Amino acid sequence: MAGRTSTPGQSVSRRLLAVLDCFDVAHPVLSLTEVAARSGLPISTARRLITELREWGGLERLRDGRYRIGMRLWTVGSLAPQQRGLREAALPAMHDLFQATQENIQLTVPDGTEALCIEKISSDRAVSTMTHVGGRLPLHATGVGKAILAFSGKQLLRAVVDAGLARMTPHTITEPGRLAAALAEVRRTGVAYCYEEMTLGAVSVAAPVLSVDGRVRAALGIVAHSRAAVDRLAPAVRTAALGIARAMG
Amino acid sequence: MAGRTSTPGQSVSRRLLAVLDCFDVAHPVLSLTEVAARSGLPISTARRLITELREWGGLERLRDGRYRIGMRLWTVGSLAPQQRGLREAALPAMHDLFQATQENIQLTVPDGTEALCIEKISSDRAVSTMTHVGGRLPLHATGVGKAILAFSGKQLLRAVVDAGLARMTPHTITEPGRLAAALAEVRRTGVAYCYEEMTLGAVSVAAPVLSVDGRVRAALGIVAHSRAAVDRLAPAVRTAALGIARAMG
Repeated sequence: MAGRTSTPGQSVSRRLLAVLDCFDVAHPVLSLTEVAARSGLPISTARRLITELREWGGLERLRDGRYRIGMRLWTVGSLAPQQRGLREAALPAMHDLFQATQENIQLTVPDGTEALCIEKISSDRAVSTMTHVGGRLPLHATGVGKAILAFSGKQLLRAVVDAGLARMTPHTITEPGRLAAALAEVRRTGVAYCYEEMTLGAVSVAAPVLSVDGRVRAALGIVAHSRAAVDRLAPAVRTAALGIARAMG
Repeated sequence: MAGRTSTPGQSVSRRLLAVLDCFDVAHPVLSLTEVAARSGLPISTARRLITELREWGGLERLRDGRYRIGMRLWTVGSLAPQQRGLREAALPAMHDLFQATQENIQLTVPDGTEALCIEKISSDRAVSTMTHVGGRLPLHATGVGKAILAFSGKQLLRAVVDAGLARMTPHTITEPGRLAAALAEVRRTGVAYCYEEMTLGAVSVAAPVLSVDGRVRAALGIVAHSRAAVDRLAPAVRTAALGIARAMG
């Protein structure tokens, strides 16, 4: 059949996409051998697909012979509309929060059983976090994640619990009952806290951005050094999240 | 040969990438028929490739049956590193400019013979522009474009002139000699102006972000209503661009 090779069940298209899947926030630069190993493709196939992606502009070759994602893919990806409208609505509010606090401001969206960071504003003075734009965060161990989880259906909570509540620090909530209680509190107050549950030394507060029909579009969060700081920032985060929801209509 | 179909010179991979190429800022949502027409692929091939892209998460289907770029491509594209480092270095300076002016702030990078907008901050109060993140601007008719062109090699200027200096408004510079003189002035002053050369009613001022070895990494621009406004903003834009260059090291 046209477009299929002898490997059953994996079309050429899937192989090309499997090459792209090798790259993530933890692996932004890869060698040919690493692409082959991570994708499970033979070296010769990986080389050919990398060449086609390079010619198109989707991959770039570094001086040391390794590869990274190129501008062409960035341009195509920037067309994803849910991010565009959300980012445009959120950036002014994020600037205001950053201006007022100089702390790490994060905008995330639900993505499967994780939160995907789609925008971040930070400075040298802010608490250092592992979060990058395009990176993923666990829903049970972060403020933005709990804000998403609290306002999503029970099905998502079940999926997250079934996937296992990984212990990131000694403070991570790893018992389903405690998590459910924490989420009920988030629904009651409209804000979600995270006290060193993801990273020691980092506390955060987040609020959901809800659509008119009550679905979670995103969560806006701020990371700071101390419990006192996030307690003080909670009303500002909640207000900003409500403003984003209103701007999106 | 594995991975090639009977169409000479166009592999399955290229066809898949041709489907992605159909989408751009002016065409963010397309029907199957439109994808087939824009890519030159038979409907059946376009349908199969769209299905594979959908299964992967690179395309999404809307309720009306049309398609748009999906979150998966956004995530992969966000790994493009030139944008990441640049955006992280630029965002604080862009916020400051926005805070001070409430005008349209744009960050662009050179991309072939055009400028690619990689970040934009705006508000309802700012001058409305056609620029979107991921969109392209002509180098000869915009402030950011002239800032890039002035500090690039003569080869780029020649390519831009050879491509034709399209008249966007009655004020667009369409004679190569006048453009060269304008660029010499940009090199002398370090800022580039654009007086309704792209859009009637919009004036802009921009400054280049140069790397240590003098190459143009990006251009930072601000769009405003009046010549007086951009004259006043020029020092701020230049200072911000220098700050971004320093932050990038």
